[in-house]
Amino acid sequence: MDETPDVTPEGIERAAGRIGGYIRRTPVIEAEPGLYFKLEFLQHAGSFKPRGAFNRILSAREAGALPEAGVIAASGGNHGLAVAHAARTLGIRAEIFVPEVTAAVKVAGLRALGAEVHQTGSLYADARTASLKRAAETGALDVHAYDQPETVTGQATLGRELLGQVPDLGAVLVAVGGGGLAAGIAAALGGTGRVVAVEPERSPTLREALSHGSPVDVEVGGVAADALGASRLGSIAFGLLSGVRSLLVPDEAIVTARRELWQRYRIAVEPAGATAYAALLTGAHRPAPGEPTVIILCGANTDPADLQARPS
Amino acid sequence: MDETPDVTPEGIERAAGRIGGYIRRTPVIEAEPGLYFKLEFLQHAGSFKPRGAFNRILSAREAGALPEAGVIAASGGNHGLAVAHAARTLGIRAEIFVPEVTAAVKVAGLRALGAEVHQTGSLYADARTASLKRAAETGALDVHAYDQPETVTGQATLGRELLGQVPDLGAVLVAVGGGGLAAGIAAALGGTGRVVAVEPERSPTLREALSHGSPVDVEVGGVAADALGASRLGSIAFGLLSGVRSLLVPDEAIVTARRELWQRYRIAVEPAGATAYAALLTGAHRPAPGEPTVIILCGANTDPADLQARPS
Repeated sequence: MDETPDVTPEGIERAAGRIGGYIRRTPVIEAEPGLYFKLEFLQHAGSFKPRGAFNRILSAREAGALPEAGVIAASGGNHGLAVAHAARTLGIRAEIFVPEVTAAVKVAGLRALGAEVHQTGSLYADARTASLKRAAETGALDVHAYDQPETVTGQATLGRELLGQVPDLGAVLVAVGGGGLAAGIAAALGGTGRVVAVEPERSPTLREALSHGSPVDVEVGGVAADALGASRLGSIAFGLLSGVRSLLVPDEAIVTARRELWQRYRIAVEPAGATAYAALLTGAHRPAPGEPTVIILCGANTDPADLQARPS
Repeated sequence: MDETPDVTPEGIERAAGRIGGYIRRTPVIEAEPGLYFKLEFLQHAGSFKPRGAFNRILSAREAGALPEAGVIAASGGNHGLAVAHAARTLGIRAEIFVPEVTAAVKVAGLRALGAEVHQTGSLYADARTASLKRAAETGALDVHAYDQPETVTGQATLGRELLGQVPDLGAVLVAVGGGGLAAGIAAALGGTGRVVAVEPERSPTLREALSHGSPVDVEVGGVAADALGASRLGSIAFGLLSGVRSLLVPDEAIVTARRELWQRYRIAVEPAGATAYAALLTGAHRPAPGEPTVIILCGANTDPADLQARPS
């Protein structure tokens, strides 16, 4: 049996229909000649994550397998917000597990979306373990942040949109943490254009997976770790990204890219949302002559306080 | 002779062709069902103003009337940035006159765009007088912020874009200062949809012009005054807006609207850019049943430092 049963052109098409009423078709702008930005930070809940969350939950509902207990997830970040948002929209229960260190503002944000929030353990892994235990007790549907076929297929709908938004698709630069978005886009594009993965130097999950021949645990940190800090690439993502190049960018370049997006374009994103753009600014990615470049601006759950005007 | 020779469907069509290579066709998103945002803050120089500035300057160039001395304008705000940006793009000289009180960061921003900046007098009117005196000396082309036909026709290209971007155009909410943008949109839409003008209570130039039967000087202030603080509606705008209703919004509603745009949509705009949305939030504008609403988010030259996350 295929390990990625759903991440196929037909599966992506079905996912697009399934979640179409719940997600925004985010716009693309041509920022400079040949340079396109996909404004996915305008998605509900401030990141691309609702695509996968809605697809996972609605797939279960279609199959008559959505439990009374609702859904469960472990994440104090974009994935948690997406699952809470999706559950509220669909009128079902959501329990979100986060580490005890999670900032109060994030916990409050999840609660404002109607989720029941449990703070447990010192690490993400502790929260994840507690969420799985709880799911086993209640029967709630576990919604993984990136390593379930429905999640990857949901993220793939972003790639499907791109095909209709950018003429002559070239390089598509996308940040990688667990790899769900990059893998989904690669699946959606098929042979059209090419996915270029961009990772913070301090969380190189794809780079390490490629060099070891399979996903391995990686020590992660850095300015984008709250969104790209998965400690290991997803197995589904690995299957879909084996031919994709990983470019690394240092934290300083991510910080600069985020500031430049504000200064040049009045776009305020989180560090993870600026990571792909950093690869263009540093020259880690050099567009082939005449090849259009698409940058996925994937999230904006950030405090914009450090983006104030500078005298330049 | 017609007082607004250029603000016609044909003139707008020509302007769109003239400036098309220099401005961004900014995207529209459907933020909620039936509620559309025109993301004009993604325009070059962070506001809609380059549309009019480019059209004024390029019209002069087409007519062989672009002087050696370049262009001149009085504005420490969005118009000044737009004229400086246009001049740099076209490789011509720009002199910008601003009052002495103008913040150093704004002066530096204009200089970073290559403009020669003169700080003179305590009021905008002093800077404007000095700019006209200088233009008479050097022969430079005066680029007014809103009351020249080419400017209004340039802003009208935004309305022309809307016709192709929003199906079944209903109410179009747009902030008014000098009125160039609202007037241009009204001209572009003709009988399609209806323009609804939104003004800060503390700078009601259109409201006062309508009640007096012609533009009159108004005492202006408030949180959006740096962009909407024209002391009098333009005469061209008055001719085009005589049938348009003016809704007033208080400063607090503008501040709230700006915060809500960030909290709900991850859009960071300046107070003027949030003014039209404020009319929806306060209920000053109530959409007719089934009538789509378009909000023009017209600028983002702001310090986003006060948009940080809140516990909600």
